[in-house]
Amino acid sequence: MGNSVKMTVEELEDFLEREFPQIHEGGRVYHVEKIEPDLASVRLEAGDRHLRPGGTISGPSMMALADLAAYAVILGAIGPVALAVTTNLNINFLRKPEPGDLVCDCRLLKLGKRLAVVEAYIHSVGKEELVAHATATYAIPER
Amino acid sequence: MGNSVKMTVEELEDFLEREFPQIHEGGRVYHVEKIEPDLASVRLEAGDRHLRPGGTISGPSMMALADLAAYAVILGAIGPVALAVTTNLNINFLRKPEPGDLVCDCRLLKLGKRLAVVEAYIHSVGKEELVAHATATYAIPER
Amino acid sequence: MGNSVKMTVEELEDFLEREFPQIHEGGRVYHVEKIEPDLASVRLEAGDRHLRPGGTISGPSMMALADLAAYAVILGAIGPVALAVTTNLNINFLRKPEPGDLVCDCRLLKLGKRLAVVEAYIHSVGKEELVAHATATYAIPER
Amino acid sequence: MGNSVKMTVEELEDFLEREFPQIHEGGRVYHVEKIEPDLASVRLEAGDRHLRPGGTISGPSMMALADLAAYAVILGAIGPVALAVTTNLNINFLRKPEPGDLVCDCRLLKLGKRLAVVEAYIHSVGKEELVAHATATYAIPER
Repeated sequence: MGNSVKMTVEELEDFLEREFPQIHEGGRVYHVEKIEPDLASVRLEAGDRHLRPGGTISGPSMMALADLAAYAVILGAIGPVALAVTTNLNINFLRKPEPGDLVCDCRLLKLGKRLAVVEAYIHSVGKEELVAHATATYAIPER
Repeated sequence: MGNSVKMTVEELEDFLEREFPQIHEGGRVYHVEKIEPDLASVRLEAGDRHLRPGGTISGPSMMALADLAAYAVILGAIGPVALAVTTNLNINFLRKPEPGDLVCDCRLLKLGKRLAVVEAYIHSVGKEELVAHATATYAIPER
Repeated sequence: MGNSVKMTVEELEDFLEREFPQIHEGGRVYHVEKIEPDLASVRLEAGDRHLRPGGTISGPSMMALADLAAYAVILGAIGPVALAVTTNLNINFLRKPEPGDLVCDCRLLKLGKRLAVVEAYIHSVGKEELVAHATATYAIPER
Repeated sequence: MGNSVKMTVEELEDFLEREFPQIHEGGRVYHVEKIEPDLASVRLEAGDRHLRPGGTISGPSMMALADLAAYAVILGAIGPVALAVTTNLNINFLRKPEPGDLVCDCRLLKLGKRLAVVEAYIHSVGKEELVAHATATYAIPER
């Protein structure tokens, strides 16, 4: 696939802030940490609203993180395209995360003319063990 | 599967309020509308934080709604069990919803000893056309 | 979606025979049973090669059946298009089927310009209880 | 997860031959190539019955390969257990494979008490580019 990135971490954060201000509602919790060819990492700064009883982080928080990180890796590969939309997301929850920030590492599996497919690995910061694994498909505008 | 429900709409809303107060953080937006044998409906009162540019409702909002509605239909079938956890969720986004409330209708496909499988249909209130379709698996405590 | 079908059961069986003769290798086991607007049913005549120890029908046999039935409902809606290809299939195995024929009932959830999404219910002939549930996405040529 | 394997390649092939002779019906096409801690590879010797028009390999052939390779990695980790059954399989088809053998490399993402989750990468022999990616969940007997 690509060997270069079309957006830096800063450009991507600016783009998200401008085009998707709603993701920051209630506080800025998503941080793009890395954009490399076919790779991206996004961190969720987990707060009270992401928790479930027992201190674990909620499933929907992880789904939202995977969806955003998948978008980040695609934007890194094709540049700022607001019109990419998720068509499918499949997630397996593997272990209950402990309280604390989560990181989602994404890898582009396919960048086609009309579809991009991404896999996403979620783990707690500083731990290798996966808490969730997802795959996501985005429909992208033809280029 | 079951021919009776173990929790009424009111009991379910009370249970969620007590056990999962976080889902109401930022405002009460989820409303259990129906619990029947093997069926449940939950409504999302869509507000600004659920929107995306163009006024459509975000994918993560729909994933969270499907996950909650799946939990509702399972609780309706097995009674108040805080320990059921999602193990897999697969969602297909079919059409962009217009702004406005969404309803998720769930149906129990399997209630096993250890796993429950649910399918979920999301549509805008008052419209038949589906905006998303999901299936979810929950691990449930052996009964 | 559509209110009419573009192919009859006979036309569809002829098309499959001509374009996909491989599915009949080892014996004719797939039978298109119904094509209606947005609906299709395909039967698997289960033989020895579809079995697993204990007499149950194998998972891959059910995946192949769901994939073919999804193709049938799409062809019924758009007409004979050999170029439609599966992009995603998600299947939940719900119960072990007893030996005997299986039927897969499919419903078109979305027929877009580029993607079609189908859900598939598999049950044993003469039994209502589901043995598997699948969703499939096909990429279709723009029309 | 595990640091050792409970079955060698030879033991696994013997086990499959004894317990699942049906997978070899019509000719021996599946070959276990590698069993390592949390990893397994299975090769599909693609023949006429696995092809589709244009010489590409059929989707159901890839689904069957992913399912079998997922089983192999689980057996490698827990030993010969005929009773493990697939509960969910999700597959994304990424590119049309050219004619020729396929290899499925599997990795164990989770080995729980009751569920094992595996991811599977399918590529043509000698090519790095993925043709499909799957995740599979197996229900396993409590140990």
